[in-house]
Amino acid sequence: MRETREILQSAKAASPVLASASTEGKNQALEAMANWLVWEQEAILQANREDVDQARAALGEVMIDRLLLTPERIRDMAAGIRDAAALPDPVGQVLRRVVRPNGLVVEKTAVPLGVIGIIYESRPNVTSDAAALALKAGSAVVLRGGKEAFRSNAAIVRALRLGLTDAGFPADLIGFIEDTSRDSARDMMEAAGFIDLLIPRGGAGLIRSCVEHAKVPCIQTGTGICHLYVDASANLDMALNIVENAKTSRPSVCNAAEVLLVHQEIADRFLPELRRRLVEDRAAKRLPAVELRLDPSAAAIIPGTAASDRDFDTEFLDYILAVRVVDSVEEAVRHIALHSTGHSEAIVTEDPAAAETFTRQVDSAAVYVNASTRFTDGGEFGLGCEMGISTQKLHARGPMGLEELTSYKYIVRGTGQIR
Amino acid sequence: MRETREILQSAKAASPVLASASTEGKNQALEAMANWLVWEQEAILQANREDVDQARAALGEVMIDRLLLTPERIRDMAAGIRDAAALPDPVGQVLRRVVRPNGLVVEKTAVPLGVIGIIYESRPNVTSDAAALALKAGSAVVLRGGKEAFRSNAAIVRALRLGLTDAGFPADLIGFIEDTSRDSARDMMEAAGFIDLLIPRGGAGLIRSCVEHAKVPCIQTGTGICHLYVDASANLDMALNIVENAKTSRPSVCNAAEVLLVHQEIADRFLPELRRRLVEDRAAKRLPAVELRLDPSAAAIIPGTAASDRDFDTEFLDYILAVRVVDSVEEAVRHIALHSTGHSEAIVTEDPAAAETFTRQVDSAAVYVNASTRFTDGGEFGLGCEMGISTQKLHARGPMGLEELTSYKYIVRGTGQIR
Repeated sequence: MRETREILQSAKAASPVLASASTEGKNQALEAMANWLVWEQEAILQANREDVDQARAALGEVMIDRLLLTPERIRDMAAGIRDAAALPDPVGQVLRRVVRPNGLVVEKTAVPLGVIGIIYESRPNVTSDAAALALKAGSAVVLRGGKEAFRSNAAIVRALRLGLTDAGFPADLIGFIEDTSRDSARDMMEAAGFIDLLIPRGGAGLIRSCVEHAKVPCIQTGTGICHLYVDASANLDMALNIVENAKTSRPSVCNAAEVLLVHQEIADRFLPELRRRLVEDRAAKRLPAVELRLDPSAAAIIPGTAASDRDFDTEFLDYILAVRVVDSVEEAVRHIALHSTGHSEAIVTEDPAAAETFTRQVDSAAVYVNASTRFTDGGEFGLGCEMGISTQKLHARGPMGLEELTSYKYIVRGTGQIR
Repeated sequence: MRETREILQSAKAASPVLASASTEGKNQALEAMANWLVWEQEAILQANREDVDQARAALGEVMIDRLLLTPERIRDMAAGIRDAAALPDPVGQVLRRVVRPNGLVVEKTAVPLGVIGIIYESRPNVTSDAAALALKAGSAVVLRGGKEAFRSNAAIVRALRLGLTDAGFPADLIGFIEDTSRDSARDMMEAAGFIDLLIPRGGAGLIRSCVEHAKVPCIQTGTGICHLYVDASANLDMALNIVENAKTSRPSVCNAAEVLLVHQEIADRFLPELRRRLVEDRAAKRLPAVELRLDPSAAAIIPGTAASDRDFDTEFLDYILAVRVVDSVEEAVRHIALHSTGHSEAIVTEDPAAAETFTRQVDSAAVYVNASTRFTDGGEFGLGCEMGISTQKLHARGPMGLEELTSYKYIVRGTGQIR
């Protein structure tokens, strides 16, 4: 097993080649990576079968499905790499240009970060997605996946590295950490000078560990306690559609809603309709019903489980919705300030003043008026791709596309100017 | 003495008021702060006299000068606050706007960070400059200055807070840490949830301590081992002007040059001229001569001190220049990659290919062709102001103006869209 530090050093040493590569060169490398992924399909599927066999005892059906690869999923991964090749190259873009009175030409120019580290969990498609985006952004990448997907990830990385070599690039531009214990995650967090950006993609525990231990720059991603607030003036049909979509269209993702706040003026009318829609209608359609966890005011109107305090601070990632009645948009904003993870929140309202208060005062990466929180996604925002959803305020917030995976420098051209 | 944690909590609690303040409101607060700074001039000068008296025993003349306040310097500080008021408000700017095929309107909108913490050293004018820029950018600020300037800083903060109250804003938008021990700096570094951005402005020790201990987002600033490279094709007169300017115009600042690399082809001609210009001519003009610390190749051409290895990794901040002969632009780039702090580097050359290699491959915040490194400054780059020079790659690199002191969020407006 190669040491984590050695893998990081190799990636750092290889990174300048990519930083000064042409767009065409990078795209050829991506094309070769996509080809080799398909050519190595049998080896990847075999490795994945071993992972799945071993995981069956420990993981539930949903997790097994996240882990499972099929020929179709591998084709999708290859298509994802080609999509990255088709995106505009962020590197070298002049973000701002000024000519100063003394004649200096100052250009703020996008440049690669250097080495991007990624710590992620079970889905093996992240391996190729993340590598493709990092490379297109001009940075080497070091991947540290979860242990359930170890064989699959190793086989995918082998194919991607064959593509790099085929295109004349050093294979070490994609580093793969073989140690899947917590030690290697800690080693990455502490690798100052070798990792220019570390992206932890995972649960709250991983994020907390990064805040606690990281000596390298990190971007926290992916924890979403997302709120919906149904205002007194809301169109209630629209509100029902948005709540059902945000809660049930894909409950396991970070932009799914976990908490519903309802204005007291409409709670008597709205909550019974909500229950019918999320519980009774869905059960009748043989869809998973939503468990409603109700604060005392909501529980006085409809039946449901009594909410504990913890229910308003939990990312359920399941068919569970915590419900609270509030007396104003301001109280909704205060609740969100105390309980949100800063990911995505939505108001449903026909009142422009309430919308204005909500969008101004809610301090989250994405704030919606009359739309589902499920849209917080690089593709849906028009970024073309996504490396994750940042819930922090520095550098990148919300979906991270290629631009957010670069830095910049000032290139200043003169004719002998002194100060 | 108020506890550091309590001061941070008060700033955090006050910050939403400023985040939703109008541009006009913020500018009125800044105007009131400038007025109170002048009205409180006598108290500030008295406090400063006490600081200076106490510091005289311990500090040299240069440091005493940095600490000293005069009526003129206080007027300059007030003018600096009014300059911040005159700058365009970064908050609320729509940085990107897309209308998606489904009709969603996605606006990437600049928003305040929340609370900005600043750890700084002896110059008391930083107190008002930093407070004014943070407030204009919509964030509360918590200031932790050095102990030599404690009384001066406290008096300045008192005046600024009177200005805030006068304009109807909470005084706690400017927090002042009264504990000047290392404990309070550590407390700030660890105050996750209370500080949204911490800017350490100081020496290498403070920066290292931040990398080691910070659990809040930090931007490293201000350490500059800046390099000049004189290429084989350089205009030697231009090179002499640039070297003298970059080294001697203000040796104590971070954008001053510390290391000179000279191409071997011109070393025989250039180094004797360099010595005449930096040593003999300056001595004749009664200007401080520059001590040249020479690698063996340079020492074979001109007299000077023999350089130790450490001289190529030292921020002298003094009339000292380390000199090394290199055999190509590529060797210069490699030397810089190993020894630079990533602040500012310059090439002097008439060869476009050498300039291209240098600007592409040198990975520093500012890379110059035929100009002095001394221009790395918010004002000189046209940003209108500056909170410091970032030497890191995430969020902000190079001079940080108002834009770099903000974050953004996505505001998404729909008509009931679901996914």
